[in-house]
Amino acid sequence: MKNVKYLECINCGAQYKPEKGRYTCDKCGPALGILDVIYDYDYIKSKVSKESFANNKDYSMWRYEPFMAVEENGPKGKLRVGWSPLYKADVLAKEIGLDTLYVKDDGINPTSSLKDRASAIAVAKALEEKAEVICCSSTGNAASSIAGNAASVGIKTVIFVPGRAPQGKVAQLKIFGANVMSVQGSYEETFKLSAEAIDKFGWYNRNAAINPYCVEGKKTVSIETCEQMNWEVPDWIVFSVGDGCTIAGAYKGYLDLYNAGFIDKLPRVAGIQAEGCAPLAHAWAEKRAWKPEEENTIADSIAVGVPRNAVKAIRAVEASNGVWETVTDDEILDAMRFMGKHAGVFGEPAGAAGMAGLRKLVASGVIKKNETVVCAVTGNGLKDVVNAIKAAGEPIKVEPTSEGLEKALTQIGY
Amino acid sequence: MKNVKYLECINCGAQYKPEKGRYTCDKCGPALGILDVIYDYDYIKSKVSKESFANNKDYSMWRYEPFMAVEENGPKGKLRVGWSPLYKADVLAKEIGLDTLYVKDDGINPTSSLKDRASAIAVAKALEEKAEVICCSSTGNAASSIAGNAASVGIKTVIFVPGRAPQGKVAQLKIFGANVMSVQGSYEETFKLSAEAIDKFGWYNRNAAINPYCVEGKKTVSIETCEQMNWEVPDWIVFSVGDGCTIAGAYKGYLDLYNAGFIDKLPRVAGIQAEGCAPLAHAWAEKRAWKPEEENTIADSIAVGVPRNAVKAIRAVEASNGVWETVTDDEILDAMRFMGKHAGVFGEPAGAAGMAGLRKLVASGVIKKNETVVCAVTGNGLKDVVNAIKAAGEPIKVEPTSEGLEKALTQIGY
Repeated sequence: MKNVKYLECINCGAQYKPEKGRYTCDKCGPALGILDVIYDYDYIKSKVSKESFANNKDYSMWRYEPFMAVEENGPKGKLRVGWSPLYKADVLAKEIGLDTLYVKDDGINPTSSLKDRASAIAVAKALEEKAEVICCSSTGNAASSIAGNAASVGIKTVIFVPGRAPQGKVAQLKIFGANVMSVQGSYEETFKLSAEAIDKFGWYNRNAAINPYCVEGKKTVSIETCEQMNWEVPDWIVFSVGDGCTIAGAYKGYLDLYNAGFIDKLPRVAGIQAEGCAPLAHAWAEKRAWKPEEENTIADSIAVGVPRNAVKAIRAVEASNGVWETVTDDEILDAMRFMGKHAGVFGEPAGAAGMAGLRKLVASGVIKKNETVVCAVTGNGLKDVVNAIKAAGEPIKVEPTSEGLEKALTQIGY
Repeated sequence: MKNVKYLECINCGAQYKPEKGRYTCDKCGPALGILDVIYDYDYIKSKVSKESFANNKDYSMWRYEPFMAVEENGPKGKLRVGWSPLYKADVLAKEIGLDTLYVKDDGINPTSSLKDRASAIAVAKALEEKAEVICCSSTGNAASSIAGNAASVGIKTVIFVPGRAPQGKVAQLKIFGANVMSVQGSYEETFKLSAEAIDKFGWYNRNAAINPYCVEGKKTVSIETCEQMNWEVPDWIVFSVGDGCTIAGAYKGYLDLYNAGFIDKLPRVAGIQAEGCAPLAHAWAEKRAWKPEEENTIADSIAVGVPRNAVKAIRAVEASNGVWETVTDDEILDAMRFMGKHAGVFGEPAGAAGMAGLRKLVASGVIKKNETVVCAVTGNGLKDVVNAIKAAGEPIKVEPTSEGLEKALTQIGY
């Protein structure tokens, strides 16, 4: 990997070679010693430019391969991940009170969430290492995405999900042939059991915070957004936050572009957490260190009481002069309806939480009318039908007769 | 529309101008008098070529606008429909006994089904006509797709679905702000009620068989596949069949390419129906006219006892020297697992029915080992989680302790 200088511990600064089996810092341990990939931006600049991207016909996240810590032209999974649509959402903007709003719909990925970006790079790394099994714990989306991406190249998966993971996500990963362990406990307990199994069998570890490469896949959502905006940098990017990896990746995408000379400013980062599980947002509001919280929210993908990548997430918001915000479950359900009705975009609760937070941040004046905003939808609404029904309500039941029809039409004002 | 000569009745050959409000043939009536769009291929050839497509950066179905009956550069919906991935599925091919198999995953569309292609053109036509309401009946996917695509440009929708439509699909269209009429009866009754309402209020009619343009949107799945295969024509295309519109469109895509000089042969068409609702396949096997059937299958999207576009579907199979095949619900569930495990593609039951049929057609020798096949996955498996769970089974429940872990790992052979 000529584009990578080394891995650096975000806690103590120790440097490591990006070798097989290297996940975390030996000195700081797996909980604190998360590693960051440090790139050689001169090398990257020698490989890509705005012009080369304009002529690149690979419309997937792999068009940004020079920005990723993988072997050049090395093995990859077969699913087409990335290049999701970026919608200029004028009606939503107007309703919220913004001049310019973009919605990045990352539910349009092979397994229907942004997590495919992390799983695609995890599969590439597992293929480089000739791993036979990939293991991870997940609230659901990371699980189904690693199961699907691994299935595309015949790698086995063992997946640990918390018992509360929605049926749709579990069904999806079972269909992908994964060995699914439904842990009858919290996400924290689920994570610990997966770590225990990985230790025992030496499986490839796709746990997003432990694995230094997952964030590097996730960052493509920002590089891609920036290219889709013709390399314009928005004033704000808004992401929902659970483990912290996605928002860390989203910020790093812009940071890489900045360091490689593609852009000359950085966006401010708004991190949105569910009120019922907001260890990072609450800590920020109360100006204290974060502490574990209960996981009481319908937004299962961000219901993470003990964020595994808190440091990277906090740094992204801090370094960008950003903010944190919390949203209630009702606000999330309302945001689902709001995006569906005014933009035709259907997000799962965690996917709509960003939009719910954005509305509050504009209403409170933190984000100004004339500031350009990109709001990410991180997962497809079909992932969690139960909550979609909760948000949407039941249809009108109609008897199959002309009288039945007339009665029903009257109900909707015709 | 300089690219369109006229609309032609597929029953009597009468010609009509493609004017506002023109759906079916006056002489033959709406049940028989379905119209086909007849193009001026010389005009189309003057507009596009293989070279122009190679340089076209619009990676959506609208790159094929010159092949569609819409105003040049006219108004469009805002969702990005089409350019879904085409996977060369080597493991599936080997398992089935084919040399070359492609899987076209059309579940990767904004509302997660191929129907978005039809809805996108319906919305374009509705915008051309300045319609305020679009109405349709649907087993589910057409409904959610028209609701989503219409929402993206603020057009109201009134949608009739049969009571049996899966929750996921209903939730989706409710989220898109549609007025949803859940008809407590069959698809046939649902269709009739929608027609009654359309007659009464003059709403834009997106019922796929009645509306002559929906097929024109659906055909982009084939034009796109052909371009993705570098204009190579497969020996076979395999599609599941309900109303008949999709397979008719899939064939017309190749026919258009042939007529416009892009290709010099046509694929054979295999139509797959669910054994519990196979009016067209049964008629073909028994060499008789088709007659209505019950709707007894888990594959709700193709559970159509009275296909509204039977003629176009039958002609596509006949003209291409194709075949019909039926598959049981168990074969469909097995195909869902098969595609998920060996390709990382998750189809809903109707979406996997094509693959189930393909396996039978290869096993019986109808499709030969050395023939190149494209099999379409028409909808995302997340659309119907209940049946996905039926296919996939339940996960292993694990107590959150080391002992619980060990017990569970033993169950999967570790």
